[in-house]
Amino acid sequence: MCRLLAYTGRPILLEDLVCRPDHSLIHQALAAQEARTVTNGDGFGIGWYGERPIPGCYRETLPAWSDENLRSICAQVRSGLFFAHVRATTEAAVARVNCHPFVHDRFMFMHNGQIGGHRQIRRKVEALIPDELYSARAGSTDSESIFLAALGQGLETDPVGAIARALRLVLELQKEAGITEAFRFAACFTDGDRLWAFRWSSDREMPTLYLRGRDEGTVVVSEPIDGCGGGDWSEVPRCGWVSIPRDGSPTYGSLDRAICDCRD
Amino acid sequence: MCRLLAYTGRPILLEDLVCRPDHSLIHQALAAQEARTVTNGDGFGIGWYGERPIPGCYRETLPAWSDENLRSICAQVRSGLFFAHVRATTEAAVARVNCHPFVHDRFMFMHNGQIGGHRQIRRKVEALIPDELYSARAGSTDSESIFLAALGQGLETDPVGAIARALRLVLELQKEAGITEAFRFAACFTDGDRLWAFRWSSDREMPTLYLRGRDEGTVVVSEPIDGCGGGDWSEVPRCGWVSIPRDGSPTYGSLDRAICDCRD
Amino acid sequence: MCRLLAYTGRPILLEDLVCRPDHSLIHQALAAQEARTVTNGDGFGIGWYGERPIPGCYRETLPAWSDENLRSICAQVRSGLFFAHVRATTEAAVARVNCHPFVHDRFMFMHNGQIGGHRQIRRKVEALIPDELYSARAGSTDSESIFLAALGQGLETDPVGAIARALRLVLELQKEAGITEAFRFAACFTDGDRLWAFRWSSDREMPTLYLRGRDEGTVVVSEPIDGCGGGDWSEVPRCGWVSIPRDGSPTYGSLDRAICDCRD
Amino acid sequence: MCRLLAYTGRPILLEDLVCRPDHSLIHQALAAQEARTVTNGDGFGIGWYGERPIPGCYRETLPAWSDENLRSICAQVRSGLFFAHVRATTEAAVARVNCHPFVHDRFMFMHNGQIGGHRQIRRKVEALIPDELYSARAGSTDSESIFLAALGQGLETDPVGAIARALRLVLELQKEAGITEAFRFAACFTDGDRLWAFRWSSDREMPTLYLRGRDEGTVVVSEPIDGCGGGDWSEVPRCGWVSIPRDGSPTYGSLDRAICDCRD
Repeated sequence: MCRLLAYTGRPILLEDLVCRPDHSLIHQALAAQEARTVTNGDGFGIGWYGERPIPGCYRETLPAWSDENLRSICAQVRSGLFFAHVRATTEAAVARVNCHPFVHDRFMFMHNGQIGGHRQIRRKVEALIPDELYSARAGSTDSESIFLAALGQGLETDPVGAIARALRLVLELQKEAGITEAFRFAACFTDGDRLWAFRWSSDREMPTLYLRGRDEGTVVVSEPIDGCGGGDWSEVPRCGWVSIPRDGSPTYGSLDRAICDCRD
Repeated sequence: MCRLLAYTGRPILLEDLVCRPDHSLIHQALAAQEARTVTNGDGFGIGWYGERPIPGCYRETLPAWSDENLRSICAQVRSGLFFAHVRATTEAAVARVNCHPFVHDRFMFMHNGQIGGHRQIRRKVEALIPDELYSARAGSTDSESIFLAALGQGLETDPVGAIARALRLVLELQKEAGITEAFRFAACFTDGDRLWAFRWSSDREMPTLYLRGRDEGTVVVSEPIDGCGGGDWSEVPRCGWVSIPRDGSPTYGSLDRAICDCRD
Repeated sequence: MCRLLAYTGRPILLEDLVCRPDHSLIHQALAAQEARTVTNGDGFGIGWYGERPIPGCYRETLPAWSDENLRSICAQVRSGLFFAHVRATTEAAVARVNCHPFVHDRFMFMHNGQIGGHRQIRRKVEALIPDELYSARAGSTDSESIFLAALGQGLETDPVGAIARALRLVLELQKEAGITEAFRFAACFTDGDRLWAFRWSSDREMPTLYLRGRDEGTVVVSEPIDGCGGGDWSEVPRCGWVSIPRDGSPTYGSLDRAICDCRD
Repeated sequence: MCRLLAYTGRPILLEDLVCRPDHSLIHQALAAQEARTVTNGDGFGIGWYGERPIPGCYRETLPAWSDENLRSICAQVRSGLFFAHVRATTEAAVARVNCHPFVHDRFMFMHNGQIGGHRQIRRKVEALIPDELYSARAGSTDSESIFLAALGQGLETDPVGAIARALRLVLELQKEAGITEAFRFAACFTDGDRLWAFRWSSDREMPTLYLRGRDEGTVVVSEPIDGCGGGDWSEVPRCGWVSIPRDGSPTYGSLDRAICDCRD
């Protein structure tokens, strides 16, 4: 399990959310409070949009808390749309290619959770990646596979539907293989404009995911970064999704429903 | 293209071959003479057999010439069967999981060369990996795929035949895809007892591979390590293989013939 | 604060102490129980004596728990005298040169603790390093300075006296500078033959240090590695030292007394 | 010896100079043409000024040519004043703390060259660092010492004089120690506003340093980045300095003269 943070809104320095808060993502790397693993020290990554359609990305295998480059970059880079992630690996090696966020073209994705029994069905999960994206696979995580599979399902034009279809296909693979371990999925996706967050689990033991909307922008996090349980965080609904524009209000929906819909 | 070295014989310190010679593998990392790339600085690896059936392995993404750990380990570890490899990547990311040698169970493999057009047929190359080995794939190189595919073809019991079948299958994938770029393959394999070396190319522009047999043991290298063009190195025959026991004389054969044989 | 382990006795695989026990050093890196910092993920190191007078050394900046090389090396290397250390930095950068153990010639040293107010008196602490050893300083830790300073005080011939003199000199520097923060020092030293362990603090808030002597050998640890509070660990006496031969019984003494003695 | 690049002028993307040109700094890391070492693969660094007085900095021990983070950051970061450096170590370990540029407060410095016989006089060179900056020393290079020593000589208010005094003091240390190896020094310094470049050697075997002034800005490099020997590069005068404002024309002077002046 990992910890993640996404922001969309008025451009701010990354450090305002990633480094400075009491229970910032860097602090969560060392001492997560709502995760199954306290320590998320198996690498990290940040991705941000600047003046180009393609985001910048910095991923490293060191723990986030000891990386001076991370602090320095976060102190300089201002962005109106960025992701940050600290990793606790369950299966795949500690390697930059296995660190989140994953970037493909102008799209960016990160994930907290896992496909239960992934080792058993890894080949079939990877078979969900379309041919034209297969050579883009650089690592060996289930997360990267889901991202590329979802791109193949139309993530660009129909994010909720594409994620729903990808989840459903993975669920079917688990079922076929007789896997009873859960599939847990808290994730963020962006096309460089709008931000989508997803919170879902096959066994109702839901990964945490919170949202805070303020005038300057909206933050999505695995756990609140102010460490005080302050009142302006709301949970992303269980088995739900939320779509957040640069300006304006979020739209919510049911991911369960979307998964059902794509069954037909 | 990369540079590699394998040794089998009386136990010696790794440094005797890896670090000390004038044109040692570490020196070749900085200044290869017979390679298409002068610099082989995209990581390295050593693997050695000690008192256990499974080999030890140290792989790192730094260049071999600047890694103090490598020098220290090579100065301490004595082995009668070991591999060393310095990498120059053509496609896959610089990551430990993409560094050679690759170890699976008691088997070890390393490679210099590449499958022309690998990106186009990567999915099909990976489809050659048998189900039970698929979850062992940690990186994204063509080399690791060939190793796992060959294991599936019986590398344990029939190394030459298994490599021949794997090469033939890859050649067919290239052909199907209309790929005209060559498939070049200089490689070493061991089961912890005997050492096999292979030298082959689909276009007769052969990767270099040399062998030196002395009383204390046999060395296989991409290029001679004494840097003097001394007389006791012989080329591994073009499109050939050589099988080297711990004691006794090498056996040679034609890899072209083996590939032809498996066509029937 | 860091966690350390030293062994002397019949040659064993490093993994028997470093990796395998329930609360092995690798486990302590992730979840120390008796340290001021739970996580010791700022790099690690192992050093061991084999057939040469100079020890082998492998130090890396990744956390010990995620380093596959560490596990592989520990599974292969057998030694009758070795050190292992996981680091939690208080001041100096995460860098291999700041990882323990420190090796100089055939001597090896590692440390858990810190010189209170080191930043203020760093120059003067470094001035304790003799000229002929100054160029050996590769990092910026107080630990490395103490080691080199103690070498200058005769660590080779009189380990207890040399450590006592080095501690006393540092104490005087703290006093001169009006530093009230404590100087805490749990350390191991070896000349490749005998092992010395030291446990001391200027403020009586003593770093933990345990010893377990069995037939096959003696282990010194920051905290017991079996995680069960089993009965055969004894504390190294407060402000004491212990000297352990390869065979035979340890000798104990008072480090406080040694420090007093060198005042005259 | 290393390769360096500095830019001041209209804000541009770092990649325009660091990655894109035919003989960009990244290409020089792999294949320098005018350096004593062809390969500059012992780490790299970039430092840039954005909207803060303190620069951002990204330093890494991997070779520049294989670091995907470097390419991604350079493709996103736009700056009107930045440094980039690829390292070939002569003495100090490969470590981030030994990578250039060095940043202290709002000041930034990088260096190509070396103090001949540095190991012999390292303690005395470090003694040139003023007390209040001593704890800022993180690595073990002569370059970092010169920077901190020059800060102590007034680099902030009188860059040329401060560098001259620092060089002179080092020269005297070499002389005292009977060192006959040369002291070579090509370096850039900035206070976040103006850029200074220095080219000097004690033995007239001068490190190369070129300057190209165009409307949009001025570039200083160890060797031209267009790889064509194009006509608009001029050599920085031997034993000279150049001071370059954000807008306007450079000022030149003699570093030899400045060194003489400070002798009195």
